[in-house]
Amino acid sequence: MPAPNALYAQSGGPTAVINATAQGVIEAVRNARPAFGKLYAARNGILGALHEQLLDTDAASAREVEALGQRPGSAFGTARYKLARFEDDEREYRRLIDVFRAHDIGRVFFNGGNDSMDTALKLSELGQRLDYPLQCIGLPKTVDNDLPVTDCCPGFGSAAKYVAVSTREAALDVAGMARTSTKVFILEVMGRHAGWIAAAGGLAGTGSGDAPHIILFPEVPFEAERFLERVRESVEQHEYCVIVASEGARYANGRFLSEAGGADAFGHKQLGGLAPVLANMIRESLGYKHHYAICDYLQRSARHLASATDLSHAYAAGKAGVEMAADGGNAVMVAIERTGNHPYTWTTTAAPLDQVANREKELPGEFISEDGYGITEAARTYLQPLIEGEALPPFRGGLPVYEEIGLPSAQKRLPPFE
Amino acid sequence: MPAPNALYAQSGGPTAVINATAQGVIEAVRNARPAFGKLYAARNGILGALHEQLLDTDAASAREVEALGQRPGSAFGTARYKLARFEDDEREYRRLIDVFRAHDIGRVFFNGGNDSMDTALKLSELGQRLDYPLQCIGLPKTVDNDLPVTDCCPGFGSAAKYVAVSTREAALDVAGMARTSTKVFILEVMGRHAGWIAAAGGLAGTGSGDAPHIILFPEVPFEAERFLERVRESVEQHEYCVIVASEGARYANGRFLSEAGGADAFGHKQLGGLAPVLANMIRESLGYKHHYAICDYLQRSARHLASATDLSHAYAAGKAGVEMAADGGNAVMVAIERTGNHPYTWTTTAAPLDQVANREKELPGEFISEDGYGITEAARTYLQPLIEGEALPPFRGGLPVYEEIGLPSAQKRLPPFE
Repeated sequence: MPAPNALYAQSGGPTAVINATAQGVIEAVRNARPAFGKLYAARNGILGALHEQLLDTDAASAREVEALGQRPGSAFGTARYKLARFEDDEREYRRLIDVFRAHDIGRVFFNGGNDSMDTALKLSELGQRLDYPLQCIGLPKTVDNDLPVTDCCPGFGSAAKYVAVSTREAALDVAGMARTSTKVFILEVMGRHAGWIAAAGGLAGTGSGDAPHIILFPEVPFEAERFLERVRESVEQHEYCVIVASEGARYANGRFLSEAGGADAFGHKQLGGLAPVLANMIRESLGYKHHYAICDYLQRSARHLASATDLSHAYAAGKAGVEMAADGGNAVMVAIERTGNHPYTWTTTAAPLDQVANREKELPGEFISEDGYGITEAARTYLQPLIEGEALPPFRGGLPVYEEIGLPSAQKRLPPFE
Repeated sequence: MPAPNALYAQSGGPTAVINATAQGVIEAVRNARPAFGKLYAARNGILGALHEQLLDTDAASAREVEALGQRPGSAFGTARYKLARFEDDEREYRRLIDVFRAHDIGRVFFNGGNDSMDTALKLSELGQRLDYPLQCIGLPKTVDNDLPVTDCCPGFGSAAKYVAVSTREAALDVAGMARTSTKVFILEVMGRHAGWIAAAGGLAGTGSGDAPHIILFPEVPFEAERFLERVRESVEQHEYCVIVASEGARYANGRFLSEAGGADAFGHKQLGGLAPVLANMIRESLGYKHHYAICDYLQRSARHLASATDLSHAYAAGKAGVEMAADGGNAVMVAIERTGNHPYTWTTTAAPLDQVANREKELPGEFISEDGYGITEAARTYLQPLIEGEALPPFRGGLPVYEEIGLPSAQKRLPPFE
């Protein structure tokens, strides 16, 4: 009996290094043959599986696969899409099995974050429920770094590096201007539920007085008076104040600061997110001139500033997933295990999907300094290796070269799914 | 008679490469001795000259000077400060001459943008007015690229590269997500008066359909209906729409879009600038999910992504300024002259300060495509060489190393200035 075919799917928000995981999967499958048949990539994640939009990765040359690994964003498209519970609606699950059967797909690599690992878990249980031989392996990916069991999540290290570098660079700009102009600078970063990315901003400074002077974590209830007092102290001591603010910063009652501005004259909800709310607070109370930047997608797509460590994790996750599948694994996610800090060493292991799905790893309390506005040595020890190393993509004409990978679609064998 | 001492001062907003100009000045002065005495750097620009805060650059080692050239932000501090007109108030001018005389300063290198060249012009006229031998040389610097005579301004090329790279990277993120999530992404960039930086975003795309799909220039009156129609077309054709928006985007009547949101429930002026105004417009009219990033200071401090061409210009401006001073020059600014496009070649020349001060170079109409939403081939020919080449600073621990230069202050010889 020939080896079954496999399917690789990306899910949820992209990262700067997600396609390095795709590269790892493709290269490892090629090396593992004849233990694998063909390898398809789903167009737009789980939607591609439902709608039988399967790209044939075998058509890509070795060079194209290598270039794929250097491209940020989801090269095959991704999706935010939650499958219904099997008990509530079997339709989508039956369709997936139909598609898998039609294309001899026996192994699925599902590359995503928290919600995606829930989907991966559902898929891993599907074989038994519907009597079809199916292995599902989760491959971790999220800039939010909130998957449990794994020491870190591919994608996070590069976002962390982007935020730390940006904080350091913008801080120098403000420091030079502060005497007669901008005194307060706010960098708004991602992390609706956990302060991992904001914490990384803390790596920008190493000595006393270095920026950032204040980090706002979702984990630390925001107190306006104490915050403003700290801004004032920083400006008085250092002439300026740099703030790294997680978009998830919130009051003790759980209300996000970004929702706190009320409605405008037309009854529209306050526009502009967290940074302008903080900026307004500072202007009204302290009168300081301020500026803010909002990183948004830049922090998760800045492949030009990717962390070499993060890139290695991403690639290794793909490769390890293929090995686990070849060994008959199912219902597991590849996890990164840290085996040493000085020097930093790591390996990949298998984490049961039911210990990963629908759980979030919070930023440990011991990573936040006592005053709630900075990071501790424990946080530095954890974060530092994850941003180490530069891994520039090729540049041409002053710009990074990010090639599109053109893959043929597998012939459809089923009627459309409605 | 020994050669006079010289003073170098930074002015206005910093850039990613301003200190490369400082490096150029310091190294050229050292090479030109004995035609130069000491070289001081003013603390916080013109304020340091007024308050006799003069840093002795001779204390820096050759290695420290080289490291200085790799640091973004104003290493000696800068200032936004406008001198009164000589006719209205002579006090500051007389003080400057007192300071210059007390420290044997006969040459001033003033490194800045439009407003700063006005100051440089005033200084250049001072010698004759107050009978003190003084040469003043302007060194160009502004991310806004709006100084006349010079082909481009050191600082702009790096900001342009940052915006082009960020647009390309974020666009890949959105393209991969668009099927089920974000369809419109807005990147807000600097350029209150001219669309130079926004135009650079256009370099991110090279083929038809490539992002950015829309560029908003201050030079093109904003028409909401036409804009929204173009957003809709882009989403229908490409599944997504990437917009690079200059902060100076405005209506035909001159009102900035960023001021258009009215006041909030508390009577505060609309917070959050341009991007959220556009985003709100898109949501209300078209219902598309959107995201936006605001580059702010990141675009002018991202030394990790500096353009090698820009860096060469910045260094050469410093060096050429010293040569002009050695040749007895006064009341001139170093200009970058383009001598060829294929390959790109350039040289430095002297531009009379009175042709530079208080004038702005606008983005030429021929650089903007007929529909007003893109750039032309002429713009590409102009912009392309300015972003060419990478010039990474040294990295340690995953972060760029930006050293502070510690210089001793010259002994004060005058009473404080009030």
